[in-house]
Amino acid sequence: MKAVCLLSGGLDSTVLLGLTQDEGYDPIALSVIYGQRHVTEIAAAREVARFYKVPHFVVDLGDSLKPILKGSALTDASVEVPEGHYAAENMALTVVPNRNAILLSLATALAVSQGAEVVRFGAHAGDHAIYPDCREEFVTPFSDAMRAGNQPATVVVEGPFLHISKTDIVRMGYDLGAPFELTWSCYKGGAKHCGRCGTCVERRLAFEDADLSDPVEFEDPTYAFQVKAPS
Amino acid sequence: MKAVCLLSGGLDSTVLLGLTQDEGYDPIALSVIYGQRHVTEIAAAREVARFYKVPHFVVDLGDSLKPILKGSALTDASVEVPEGHYAAENMALTVVPNRNAILLSLATALAVSQGAEVVRFGAHAGDHAIYPDCREEFVTPFSDAMRAGNQPATVVVEGPFLHISKTDIVRMGYDLGAPFELTWSCYKGGAKHCGRCGTCVERRLAFEDADLSDPVEFEDPTYAFQVKAPS
Repeated sequence: MKAVCLLSGGLDSTVLLGLTQDEGYDPIALSVIYGQRHVTEIAAAREVARFYKVPHFVVDLGDSLKPILKGSALTDASVEVPEGHYAAENMALTVVPNRNAILLSLATALAVSQGAEVVRFGAHAGDHAIYPDCREEFVTPFSDAMRAGNQPATVVVEGPFLHISKTDIVRMGYDLGAPFELTWSCYKGGAKHCGRCGTCVERRLAFEDADLSDPVEFEDPTYAFQVKAPS
Repeated sequence: MKAVCLLSGGLDSTVLLGLTQDEGYDPIALSVIYGQRHVTEIAAAREVARFYKVPHFVVDLGDSLKPILKGSALTDASVEVPEGHYAAENMALTVVPNRNAILLSLATALAVSQGAEVVRFGAHAGDHAIYPDCREEFVTPFSDAMRAGNQPATVVVEGPFLHISKTDIVRMGYDLGAPFELTWSCYKGGAKHCGRCGTCVERRLAFEDADLSDPVEFEDPTYAFQVKAPS
């Protein structure tokens, strides 16, 4: 059975692709360029799809969404990328309005076109604090809508990591032999991961917590361990 | 209160915009170029938005969705636009995979960015036969997902015409003084409406049924009245 997997090129979606293949699906990877500050992660996604030898669709929306997505640090160059803990309040600046609905709607269209019955994305438990579109309360009705809206095709939308932590994803990726070295997590687009933005901090702490070493390099490798989690 | 209204430039979305303004909302119109065979309807949308003096956002996705929307007569030039009754079986060729979810996801993003609490689109009862994403079974869970996925913003998605006929929309538009002459319904992009594609036939029959005259011109003005509705 075919399964469309959203692939950002980050760690979570890479492990998701590996898991989906491991479970016996034929994965189809989909990456979307929607106005991110940098496309380093798309280059990573290409490498990851090549690693898994899966078809990879890239939808390049160019700057078309800029007028409707204003105000997020991830798509608006006038807003600075915040540093600190992933679950801290200032990370709200990295919310892109309705992002997952947009991405999952495109993924569902691809699923219908390709005869896939499953759409998956890599939202995990640690995302819940900041991103409302990474919660079960969003995914369940959204999946119901996709199923009803594409009859006679039947598509379900799944977030297999919705209730597991980043640490568990790292452990799972390690067990599955996921190519961590090919992934890109940083919200900034430098030569190395910055080590200071929310997603870098989260990644550092997850590898530490899993007692595994991360093959990617960080500009500031110690910052993550000095940051306080929000109480 | 602000309300984002999807505006294709067709009759239904034009009346919807008029109704929404009449109900006291401040409408914001959104048109999306997603790979339609022609952009005549976008030009119509601009005229309609100007008529109502409302802000009009146009998101131009260019050809970016082509690879994921293959197989629809509306986006794939290699598939011929079918002629006949709107509810006939061959109209399934005009289904664009997951179109309304994509459009409404973008509209919801705009609503969140603009502080609008309502998103509306013009799907009507006659659409149900062919388009599963024009049914209550799609709209209700989709609206729930949009509400949950954008906390603390609260957005509801509404299809005010879901349970009324095209004839009733024509009557309502007439009562509201909607600029029918500015609208474009035809699936083909000729100089005049063709009069033979599903949406032209539907429009002809609705005006006839409402006992009103349609100000737009048709290449073949009689075809609609010879076509048999599916039993």
